[in-house]
Amino acid sequence: MQDVKPGGSFLLNCQWSPEELDQHLPASMKSYIAKNNIKFYIVDAINKAREIGMGKRTNTILQSGFFKLANIIPIDDAVQYMKEAAKKSYGRKGEEIVQMNYKAIDAGVDALVEVNVPASWADAVDAPVEKHYEGSEQMIDFVKNVLEPISEQKGNKLPVSTFEHSADGAFPMGVSAYEKRGVAVDVPEWIPENCIQCAQCSFVCPHATIRAYAADAEEMKNAPAAMKGKKMIGKGCEDYTFVMQVDPLDCMGCGLCANICPAPNKALVMKPLDSQMDQQAAFDYAVKHISEKDTGLSVETVKGSQFKQPLLEFSGACAGCVETAYARLITQLFGDRMSIANATGCSSIWGGSAPAIPYTTNKDGRGPSWANSLFEDNAEFGLGIAVATRQLRERLAAKVEKVMEKAEGALKEACQTYLDTQTNSAASRKATDALVPELEKAAANGCELSKEILKDKDFLAKRSVWIFGGDGWAYDIGYGGVDHVLASGEDVNIMVFDTEVYSNTGGQASKASQIGQVAQFAASGKAIKKKDLAAISMSYGYIYVAQIGMGANYQQTVRALVEAENYHGPSLVIGYAPCEMHGIKGGMGNSQLEIKAAVEAGYWHLFRYDPRLKAEGKNPFQLDSKEPKGDYEEFIKREVRYTSLSRSFPEKAPAMYSLAAEEAKKKYNRLTKRASENWD
Amino acid sequence: MQDVKPGGSFLLNCQWSPEELDQHLPASMKSYIAKNNIKFYIVDAINKAREIGMGKRTNTILQSGFFKLANIIPIDDAVQYMKEAAKKSYGRKGEEIVQMNYKAIDAGVDALVEVNVPASWADAVDAPVEKHYEGSEQMIDFVKNVLEPISEQKGNKLPVSTFEHSADGAFPMGVSAYEKRGVAVDVPEWIPENCIQCAQCSFVCPHATIRAYAADAEEMKNAPAAMKGKKMIGKGCEDYTFVMQVDPLDCMGCGLCANICPAPNKALVMKPLDSQMDQQAAFDYAVKHISEKDTGLSVETVKGSQFKQPLLEFSGACAGCVETAYARLITQLFGDRMSIANATGCSSIWGGSAPAIPYTTNKDGRGPSWANSLFEDNAEFGLGIAVATRQLRERLAAKVEKVMEKAEGALKEACQTYLDTQTNSAASRKATDALVPELEKAAANGCELSKEILKDKDFLAKRSVWIFGGDGWAYDIGYGGVDHVLASGEDVNIMVFDTEVYSNTGGQASKASQIGQVAQFAASGKAIKKKDLAAISMSYGYIYVAQIGMGANYQQTVRALVEAENYHGPSLVIGYAPCEMHGIKGGMGNSQLEIKAAVEAGYWHLFRYDPRLKAEGKNPFQLDSKEPKGDYEEFIKREVRYTSLSRSFPEKAPAMYSLAAEEAKKKYNRLTKRASENWD
Repeated sequence: MQDVKPGGSFLLNCQWSPEELDQHLPASMKSYIAKNNIKFYIVDAINKAREIGMGKRTNTILQSGFFKLANIIPIDDAVQYMKEAAKKSYGRKGEEIVQMNYKAIDAGVDALVEVNVPASWADAVDAPVEKHYEGSEQMIDFVKNVLEPISEQKGNKLPVSTFEHSADGAFPMGVSAYEKRGVAVDVPEWIPENCIQCAQCSFVCPHATIRAYAADAEEMKNAPAAMKGKKMIGKGCEDYTFVMQVDPLDCMGCGLCANICPAPNKALVMKPLDSQMDQQAAFDYAVKHISEKDTGLSVETVKGSQFKQPLLEFSGACAGCVETAYARLITQLFGDRMSIANATGCSSIWGGSAPAIPYTTNKDGRGPSWANSLFEDNAEFGLGIAVATRQLRERLAAKVEKVMEKAEGALKEACQTYLDTQTNSAASRKATDALVPELEKAAANGCELSKEILKDKDFLAKRSVWIFGGDGWAYDIGYGGVDHVLASGEDVNIMVFDTEVYSNTGGQASKASQIGQVAQFAASGKAIKKKDLAAISMSYGYIYVAQIGMGANYQQTVRALVEAENYHGPSLVIGYAPCEMHGIKGGMGNSQLEIKAAVEAGYWHLFRYDPRLKAEGKNPFQLDSKEPKGDYEEFIKREVRYTSLSRSFPEKAPAMYSLAAEEAKKKYNRLTKRASENWD
Repeated sequence: MQDVKPGGSFLLNCQWSPEELDQHLPASMKSYIAKNNIKFYIVDAINKAREIGMGKRTNTILQSGFFKLANIIPIDDAVQYMKEAAKKSYGRKGEEIVQMNYKAIDAGVDALVEVNVPASWADAVDAPVEKHYEGSEQMIDFVKNVLEPISEQKGNKLPVSTFEHSADGAFPMGVSAYEKRGVAVDVPEWIPENCIQCAQCSFVCPHATIRAYAADAEEMKNAPAAMKGKKMIGKGCEDYTFVMQVDPLDCMGCGLCANICPAPNKALVMKPLDSQMDQQAAFDYAVKHISEKDTGLSVETVKGSQFKQPLLEFSGACAGCVETAYARLITQLFGDRMSIANATGCSSIWGGSAPAIPYTTNKDGRGPSWANSLFEDNAEFGLGIAVATRQLRERLAAKVEKVMEKAEGALKEACQTYLDTQTNSAASRKATDALVPELEKAAANGCELSKEILKDKDFLAKRSVWIFGGDGWAYDIGYGGVDHVLASGEDVNIMVFDTEVYSNTGGQASKASQIGQVAQFAASGKAIKKKDLAAISMSYGYIYVAQIGMGANYQQTVRALVEAENYHGPSLVIGYAPCEMHGIKGGMGNSQLEIKAAVEAGYWHLFRYDPRLKAEGKNPFQLDSKEPKGDYEEFIKREVRYTSLSRSFPEKAPAMYSLAAEEAKKKYNRLTKRASENWD
């Protein structure tokens, strides 16, 4: 409030009535308004925008509200100028969108409500709130002295000495859990009686704010009353309660979970944030107190993976983001032993937005190590991590062998088991956990070699090296490196979040953009077809390659990621990721359904190429998506990035659309041919 | 001589007897030797090396000669050390090579001849030689003031001001013609009576030192007596004399021409340089006075292309180089209108070795413009040239259209013809030649637009933009750019000289190296297969792609280059180029025959992918090489880069060789499949 001058005007966008304000506004705000004679207005732009059909876009309403109050130019002139600007900006996106903007401009003028400020506000005083912090001393120090000042936009007042003890640029992990932004208007409410326990809601959640738990009786007994649950289905799970727990304050309110819920009577409905606040304590309890159970479900399944703690949570990604859903899943599968080299782009922003790092650790303190190098050298950066990791682990294996030579009994056995499983993703952790205490005993008895091994014990268990980036990086700027690293034969995993456009960089066309797509540098529609990164990479023959689309086939997504990871060689997984930039009908709450539609229309294809199958005399290429049954052109006309072409270039668009459809058909034919013929 | 101190020793490697020295040595040398009491020795390391079987490698003989004369350590010890070193260096290349080196070491000791220096040498005086320079004033200035001082190793004494008028780094073209190095031991002698007039000798010549001419009666009449010729065959050529003219002083003596000569009785035999010196005047006459005739032969054929002036000549490339044969041919086909962006590597060294630039111009002053940017951005550099060229030409076309609007008669017609053929490689020059004088007339009559057009008249005729580089550039370091530029759809032509190794950079393995190949960074044989750059590029569908191998199919080489150039889009031509680094049996005089053997063994494949064929409903992919009839493993065992593996890693080599053979077979199967099935 302190930025409003005495006698000034203040407009608040909220869903409250004037009468409800007294209850919701903090005392400091109320007293500032009353004491400084502030003219106070409210507008419910949230419901207004929904009503008009603009979804979450409230900015136009608020802009015209600003002009109404500021009165810099006569409001009628301002409205006219704004409408002319809207026509110019959105004309090529269609008349419907122009009309919506007109309505929003009018609404900003008409829907303002002046608040009669009660004189009593001047004396308002809040009860003192004692802040309670949980976590390590270091973390609490960081939250108090870095996160909070920056969140309050006071970061530029921090002295350099604040960062003295992290001079290497390292940030603590899991900081995003301390933000509790509460930015969603609506959050999901879980209705246990309708739930079929598929865990798909949590599978697609971009922010890890809805999570599956198998709680035992004791855990349920101690849980807050608000925690809901139902008897868990599945063999061996009879004694557990299935909990699908929502995290209201971290949820972005995208609605993906509710939209994709396959339960006949929908087990999730979106409700106003306020109404779900009792779930916060339940969520906090679940995170802290409900342990991971052996449910008998393989972690390498859609459902099984969702009982694993996500090690990417509450990132700053857009509501409805698909990239983070892929990344979150990867952390559930491999996060406790992975390193990530991240290219510049969206994934480096949501992955490393200082100070609120969203990558986190599990109860054992294990989580992904993460770093971002340059746009153009990220694959090489990851290769360096992989080579260093391999060297370190080979050296450790040699030392364990030497220890084993002179060892007997339990130590000898632990060494042997360790060496037998050293490169086995599934078994290596267990063998390491058995080896370490034996080495500790030996070290205590003076074994110098054991001491040396223990110094690098974090590298004993099999590591998983991942290289993350978007299409701008993988297809264009960093492609020289992507190709070189994949060709190297080293055991690395490359995950490409393919939005078919430079998203974070500003919406420019990339080589991943498709024919007819409108983007920066492709205002008249991209004329040439999408680069076939998968086909190019398959030409090597020893690279594991998969194309996935989460919303189209959850199981194929998990399978591809698991295969990529356990392949002892280079792997490339290309995940289709619809993006805010695409202008999907209904917004990003439909992003996962859009992937499904894309695959059904033959716009995107799912397949896996596993070089290991060659040794079995099989075709390494497997096509996972069915023959397209939808219409390609109909599909692309669901997205503004395509429809805008027919506004700007109506004479050119139809030919481009049909060329795109034709190329897609050819591509599908090529894929089916390859699946049936074995080109290797 | 001035570096030899009075009383010092001097060893000269020459094929002369002591008695012949008086006649061959310059007076300044003779008098210095006599006046300063120099101990003078000669050795015929050239014939000695041949005798031993070391071909042109005289260095070992000369090294042991040095130790014999220098007497720094007792010669017996020196010999022993040298032999030990030879064993160590060449052991892995085979016992045969070790034995050769032993013989060479012994020869250096035994074959020295001390020369009895006649007292009369002290007073020796040469008749003064007046140097005669031909060329533009600027060129003569450059030759006298830059080329000659640098050739005499006095380049570091040149003042900066020498380069004042070429501050942008530009060098004059065609300087290499002034070097006349005379470095060949043997040069070809042409035997007209045996010649079948196929012009293949000139087609494969790396240094453009054997050239085909169609001379008319007048030209023959005025020619030096030494010029040979025979009645030309071919319709319409009855009145011409066919001349295959050798250039002794620029020839490197590789013997390629003689080796590949298909005439039953060989029309070329290698003879000592001295014996062929009368041909120099004939060559100089031919270059200067024999015009290019309309022989009725298409330039787009093997034979026809050889009557065109090479615009790359006398480069510093190794004897027997295949890269320069490709490049020379390209200049014959398109050189008078081409720009070359050259990557760092061999081709930037032989292409731009200051001061003796080998790219030259024709009688109209037209030749390739050439520049070298960085290793990693050369494709982008070429793209910039292409885009700038296209923009300039589009602007010119717009101006010509405007001129035409108001024009009448001949000018109007010339404009129309020009516009009709603006992007036609074959017709654009002719139309331009007709247009320019008309524009000049118009300009003289005050037409400002015509004046503007004439300012950029060099860009009126269709240009040809080429991007040159080796495999280190195209497959590795510059590949990100190669991919991006090819994907751009712009009209550029990329020529890759594929030696399968970093040649100039030092013999490191590249992604173009094959399984089992020994190279730097691949001492135990490259374990993974060669990157399939052609397949990768074909995945785009709109890139013209060809794989060529000159010695295996001359006609396919020409056809691919012509198609690549006249395709209005991106083109990639990958030319197989055996290299000094390969250790080919018999040396680089067999480089072209090695290509033939490579194709016959299924080591290399010839094909073309022309996107234009799709519009005709045809398969764009055409396989040009026949089913391999040779044995892959037998083939690779002809080259030291492969055989050295079995010396160093005898237990590992057989498996690698057969894996390589297996992958080659799979590749051939894939190619035949593609040729018969149409994968697009």
